[in-house]
This record gives sequence, structure tokens and C-alpha cells, in this order.
Amino acid sequence: MSLEGNWFTEEHLGTGSAFSFRIRQKLHEEQTPYQKIEIFETEKFGNLMTIDGFVMLTSWDNFLYHEMMTHPVLFTHPAPHRVLIIGGGDCGTLREVLKHPDIRLAQQVDIDERVTRLSEQYFPELCESNHDPRAELHFGDGIKWVKDAGTDSYDVIIVDSTDPIGPGEVLFTKAFYQNCHRILAEDGLLVQQSESPLYHLELLTRMHKDMRSAGFAKTQTLNFPQPVYPSGWWSATMTGNANLSAFRQRDVETKTFDTHYYNQRIHSGALALPNFVEKHLQENI
Amino acid sequence: MSLEGNWFTEEHLGTGSAFSFRIRQKLHEEQTPYQKIEIFETEKFGNLMTIDGFVMLTSWDNFLYHEMMTHPVLFTHPAPHRVLIIGGGDCGTLREVLKHPDIRLAQQVDIDERVTRLSEQYFPELCESNHDPRAELHFGDGIKWVKDAGTDSYDVIIVDSTDPIGPGEVLFTKAFYQNCHRILAEDGLLVQQSESPLYHLELLTRMHKDMRSAGFAKTQTLNFPQPVYPSGWWSATMTGNANLSAFRQRDVETKTFDTHYYNQRIHSGALALPNFVEKHLQENI
Repeated sequence: MSLEGNWFTEEHLGTGSAFSFRIRQKLHEEQTPYQKIEIFETEKFGNLMTIDGFVMLTSWDNFLYHEMMTHPVLFTHPAPHRVLIIGGGDCGTLREVLKHPDIRLAQQVDIDERVTRLSEQYFPELCESNHDPRAELHFGDGIKWVKDAGTDSYDVIIVDSTDPIGPGEVLFTKAFYQNCHRILAEDGLLVQQSESPLYHLELLTRMHKDMRSAGFAKTQTLNFPQPVYPSGWWSATMTGNANLSAFRQRDVETKTFDTHYYNQRIHSGALALPNFVEKHLQENI
Repeated sequence: MSLEGNWFTEEHLGTGSAFSFRIRQKLHEEQTPYQKIEIFETEKFGNLMTIDGFVMLTSWDNFLYHEMMTHPVLFTHPAPHRVLIIGGGDCGTLREVLKHPDIRLAQQVDIDERVTRLSEQYFPELCESNHDPRAELHFGDGIKWVKDAGTDSYDVIIVDSTDPIGPGEVLFTKAFYQNCHRILAEDGLLVQQSESPLYHLELLTRMHKDMRSAGFAKTQTLNFPQPVYPSGWWSATMTGNANLSAFRQRDVETKTFDTHYYNQRIHSGALALPNFVEKHLQENI
């Protein structure tokens, strides 16, 4: 069967599967020096941004990813004030970070300014904190940024990047993690999107190994739904030196801002890994 | 973009989205008195069974659904011995139920014997307990079965049906739940697949209301990943008279059988509902 009408389809080669959106119209298309960005108006998911043909986010369901990339790590750290976001050009992660009143500085470093400018236009709700005095938007090479940054510069680093194929690949390496380790405070934490627990278990496992060999004592994967990414099941992997399955539960319960997905029980639940994932990690890291 | 080559695609009309599998070959196709069953060999998911064009299961990832339809409810009940499965013709739920050594009787009532016969042929691993002396395979109308069954006949009823459109629709009604309530023991539990928390929140909410108005005191939704169903994020809803968020945690930890997904922390995590789901349920049931 083939789909009739106007659709955007992302094929996932590794599993011979594909996810499609019915499209009302293409709102924008441009080739930047780094990548091809397209914006579509979908039937139900609101606007859709793709980069080089891969789904980045939709208006409807990006809250799952953005909340789970930020609140778990920020409530795991005892007192985070200084946050570095590598990638994250759509500004949804930045918005969630700045919901935390104790954050004093949130620097976002995305290589492609056009992602941010298009997000301001087509996902304005994600950009509502871009002018917060604590926010700094930088456009440049995240690899270089972490190489140049000084020791003990950050409490939390969030790597909100594209997949580990193409330009995002350098962000999934031991060399990158070593620099992150150096520029984080002693109790600092790094979190990175780590793909699908079902489709990309080998990659996820390698990330644990590389993070540990870069000098971090602990690693912990969280899992959560994300319908528009391959398998609809996604993960983020945290690393640091402290116990990563403990978090400030009381602070979550008394938080002063709204979340659409995240809460204290969701955080605990996200830490629960399936037997097949736990077994694979135990045997391979 | 359209997919090149041989694909099976399921379109989800309500959200203008679609999921596709690359197909090596169609292994079987038949129109039974009830429905059209097709079996495909996929590239990565193993075999795929569809009914009337909707994905039922694949060899690769059915463990998620089958484990979550059985183990949470069986470990929530204090001592389940007698189980009724309505639907479940692929026998995957039956196999999981019979892993519990305390089960004395597991009756499966599916309307279409051909689902089971084709499952024996194309998903033999799901049918390995069909000849267990505790198993009874019946082929007939589940609605009539629960109408005819005597009071206090079962400890647990598992409704493992197709979607609430078409033949499965009668299994999502107050009248059906009333009969389930009557034939369950006082501490009996019912669990039913309840679609996607993101795509089908209205249906899920109506199920809570109908279960409660049928005489059950409590309802509780569990959520879990299921990549091949719409949104990749699925749920089961339990109902009964006891606290449904408590379960026999120690028995889970010491269980004598293997599970690929389910464990004690996964069970707790599945009970954690997102803020938007909790809010919607609180306001509408």
C-alpha cells in the first residue's frame, strides 16, 4: 500500500521501518552552510521541522523530549546554576532549563543560527525565554566550545544534538566527553540524547562505555516516549560522579512551574530500564 | 517522498500519521468469516500479522505488549488462580499467563480460530504453552462467554482485543464490564488494552468512567512502549476494588521465570502517568 496525498516520510534504514506525517503544506525550505532545514505544516502535529530529511520536532509532541532532556538532570544535580546546552537550536531545551529559578546562566551553542531563527518563526512558544537575561545564544562549533572552556565552568551540560550520523557524530565520542568532564564542576552532570532503547542499543551501550572511560564514575539511561522519533521510544543518558538514580524528589513535588509530561513519578519511572537493556548494559560496559 | 520497494503501511487517520514496514514477502492472506488476516515477512521485525489492515503484532517487539498485559495485573492480584483471556488469539498473552506457577486455569476465548492456527504456524514461540494442561482454547463470542459465565468464576480477566472500532467495539462498553464484574471474584481484576495515551486519551478516559459505572471501585492505567502501534506509546487499564498501584513487589523480584521487558521497577514506572494524562483523568472521571 502506498500513501495517497501529500506526506513527509522518514525511513529508518536499520529496521526497515518508516514514519509518515500527512502534510498540509511546506512552509519553508533552505540549505544552510551546515544542513537542509525544512518546515512543514502537518494535519495534527502542528509544525514539523526536519533537518537533512530527519524529523527534529513537531509542535504537538516535542514537550516529551524537551522536558526529559532537562528536568531529570536538573533535579538530579544538587544545586545547578550554570548550564551549557550543546545543539538545542530550536530553543525548547533552553526554555525548560530557564523554568528553574536557581539557574543563573544558560548558554546555548548551536552550530546553525538558522535553526534558531526558523524556530522563532515557526515554533515561537519554544523561544519565549530567548530574551531571558540568564540566556546566552551562541552560534558556533560545540566541539570547539567545550575545548576552549575553562575547568569548572558548568554544573550541567545538556547535549541536545542530531543523531550520531552526519554533523552530530563528533558529539558521541570519548574526546568530546573528556572535554565535558574537564569543564564540569566536580559534582557536574552531563546528559545526552541516546536514541531508541530498542533500535539503538549498541550505540547506547557504547555511550556508557565512552562516558566512563572519559573519567565519569557513573552512567544512567532514562527512557520515555517520543512518537515522532524512530520506534516512538527514546532515551537520554546521564553521566557524572554521584548516584544518578537519586534525585531531589521533594523539590520536584514543590516545583513552581508547570510541566506537561514530567513529574516525580515519571522521573522515577524513566530510570526503570527493561530487563533486556539492563542485561545488555551489564554484559557490555 | 514515497517509499520505494515493497512496504506495508498502516495509516492512523485521527492524527494524519502512518507507520510502515519494509516487506520481504507476503506469507499468507485469508478472509475468515470475521476479518481479513495477512502475514508478512518483514526485514527486521520478523513476521508481521495484520487484521483488516491494522498491525496486530510482530515477532520482534510483541514481548512489550504481551508482558505488560499480563504480569502487572497478575502481580497486583493477591493470589490469581483462574484467568479468562478475551481475544488474545495469537496466544502470546496465554503464554505469559502460564509462566505464573500458581495459575490453575487459563481460558482463552477468541472469536476467530484462524488467528490461533496462523499464529501456531507463523509465531510458534507464542504458542509454546497452548498444550499446557492448564490452558483451554475456546473459539467463540467473548461477549456471550462473559454473559453465560457464572458469578465468581475468575480471579483475573484480560481483554486482549483489537481496537474499539469494528468487531472489538463491543468489548469497550459498560454492558461488557458489568458482566466481567459479575463473573469476577470479589477481589478480581480486569485489565484491557487501552490504546495510546497521546492519541486516544478520550477513549482511555471513557474506559475509566465505564469501568467505574459498571461497579468497580478503582481504575488504573499503565503505560509502556510499543513501537508498532500508533504513536509507539501504548497503555493497559486495570480495574477492580482494591488499590491498583500496590503490587506484590517481592514476588516480582523472586519470580522464577524470565521476562524480556517486565521487572519490578518497570511495573512501578508503568503506573506513573504524565501530568497531562492525570489532569485529564481527574477532570473527566
